[in-house]
Amino acid sequence: MTLSTNHVYPVIWHNGAVSLIDQTRLPNEYTFVEIHRSEDMARAIKTMIVRGAPAIGVAAAYGMYLGAREIETSDRHEFLQNLDKVAQLLGSTRPTAVNLFWAISRMMKVAKETLGTVEDIKQTLFQTAQAINVEDLQTCQAIGDNGLTVLPASPEKLTLLTHCNAGALATAGYGTALGVVRSAWREGRLERLFADETRPRLQGAKLTAWECVQEGIPVTLITDNMAAHCMKQGLIHAVVVGADRIAANGDTANKIGTYSVAIAAKAHNIPFFVAAPLSTVDFELADGSKIPIEERDPTEIYQVGDTILTPEGVDFYNPAFDVTPAELITAIITENGAIAPGELVKLQLKQLV
Amino acid sequence: MTLSTNHVYPVIWHNGAVSLIDQTRLPNEYTFVEIHRSEDMARAIKTMIVRGAPAIGVAAAYGMYLGAREIETSDRHEFLQNLDKVAQLLGSTRPTAVNLFWAISRMMKVAKETLGTVEDIKQTLFQTAQAINVEDLQTCQAIGDNGLTVLPASPEKLTLLTHCNAGALATAGYGTALGVVRSAWREGRLERLFADETRPRLQGAKLTAWECVQEGIPVTLITDNMAAHCMKQGLIHAVVVGADRIAANGDTANKIGTYSVAIAAKAHNIPFFVAAPLSTVDFELADGSKIPIEERDPTEIYQVGDTILTPEGVDFYNPAFDVTPAELITAIITENGAIAPGELVKLQLKQLV
Repeated sequence: MTLSTNHVYPVIWHNGAVSLIDQTRLPNEYTFVEIHRSEDMARAIKTMIVRGAPAIGVAAAYGMYLGAREIETSDRHEFLQNLDKVAQLLGSTRPTAVNLFWAISRMMKVAKETLGTVEDIKQTLFQTAQAINVEDLQTCQAIGDNGLTVLPASPEKLTLLTHCNAGALATAGYGTALGVVRSAWREGRLERLFADETRPRLQGAKLTAWECVQEGIPVTLITDNMAAHCMKQGLIHAVVVGADRIAANGDTANKIGTYSVAIAAKAHNIPFFVAAPLSTVDFELADGSKIPIEERDPTEIYQVGDTILTPEGVDFYNPAFDVTPAELITAIITENGAIAPGELVKLQLKQLV
Repeated sequence: MTLSTNHVYPVIWHNGAVSLIDQTRLPNEYTFVEIHRSEDMARAIKTMIVRGAPAIGVAAAYGMYLGAREIETSDRHEFLQNLDKVAQLLGSTRPTAVNLFWAISRMMKVAKETLGTVEDIKQTLFQTAQAINVEDLQTCQAIGDNGLTVLPASPEKLTLLTHCNAGALATAGYGTALGVVRSAWREGRLERLFADETRPRLQGAKLTAWECVQEGIPVTLITDNMAAHCMKQGLIHAVVVGADRIAANGDTANKIGTYSVAIAAKAHNIPFFVAAPLSTVDFELADGSKIPIEERDPTEIYQVGDTILTPEGVDFYNPAFDVTPAELITAIITENGAIAPGELVKLQLKQLV
């Protein structure tokens, strides 16, 4: 089955439930999971059936609505109290991506601000979740196009490197980092994408490679430790990655290994771009040292498929993210344009005015 | 089965044949392959049943003797001509590790310089192969102990990081980088070893982890892309790696990913050591740009055990080595002491005197 991933939407509302692409089964199986209850949505986020910061945000928004739908009361106060429990549950799934908390807060705020009956609130929550989904898709398309303004002017055909999957699958659609790749491909500016396989969960090998193949974008898969060597060989013109949380000073948490790529890019004078919606910026954190880094189960490291890689008696360390300091980032590509990391604060001031 | 890897010898002469630990089956199975013919030795080197630059050198030396043993002539000239074909065959297995060529040349030279009958030459070749094996073991022990002189003085208990496997399994025994680790452990200077899993072939996860577990050395396995993050967290005090070929200026070819670790170490002011016998230095190459880099089959990237990781239609790039420039290397630890990369040339001059 080949399809354009311009038409791949990892989170959609369909027949009274949320339909998620099961990303744990790609690239071998392209299947969907139907989510009817907020508890199941929490599980789907935790087990990474749905993953990628913006997609998690959309999924959590729908999760809030599913939770609201389950609450059987017409008492507004009781309803909001119960909805807060749903928010707690969804918020406890994954700690690093801020879009999760952003979406939950937005849904909670809407619920509190909506007048009328509990049914009215539920209806507004549904519309807000739908809006978050549509907005994210539009945001990604804007990010992709804004990326074109900062990519190196020469050569005409660029070879870009990405890490992990910040693609259609990680968002409502189109992608952030892969949004830039898609826009570059559409405009004839892309020669080829190099994709880090992205251990331990191999999102590059499984998801980014899959998205590229669907759209006919030439993609070369490398292991993570080859990126610096490829840069030295002159194979890479720019790096584009996504983000899970950006602190006010521009420090960026993203999939483990991003920091390593950023150091290598700096050492080779290769521009390093972060592509992310403004909802990924956490203005409450002054810098990246405060971003909580999720540690995941060591099984992810020592087992691939049915194969156990290591002998017994070994210890493991499995941080799922790392923080790339702002000084290694050439620009952050947002839906409002590409800006230097240090300019984020000005943006916040503008929003406050 | 638990055994001290002080007693693990990947290449030994036993009952008229060479016994190789089958390193493609570790850590799940600890088995041996008996090699009776030079052709089989060439295959064992190519398929990485035996791997690691110094171990390949020892294996090739025995391979030369096995080849010599097969030549059925008493004519010296004809014998040497046929032995040269054996040298060609063994030399065509893997291009990067210089120890292979060093061992073959030494065996060839000995053959040419030995007077007497063809049987006499064969006997001398056998003794030379045995000598190369014993010398490498002694060399590794000296490298390990010399490493103690350059490790950071504080803290007392160090956490070291290594990449790939430059251990007992990669040498005649004891190891080069892991030789330093072993000596540090023996002297109470080691808290713990961090080991990169080392994609694509996972020598860190499979071999280095196995060696550490055998000897009770605490080892934490990480994916390659976590090394920089660990450095930033202050978890790593020094890096020690092996080498496959060192150019005269100190540029060092080693397992793919070494360069990436070296860049990260520099960015965090962490000392980066290369541990290798002087036979790994190729004084004929002025710098690392001339070192041939082997490219291996993409299966190594897209398949782990029975699991295919990627969709069809993806391209791959699979360089097996990269070159770390001398300026990123704090010192090269040899059997004659630890020296700055720039001092190698002086060493060569001394040898010529």
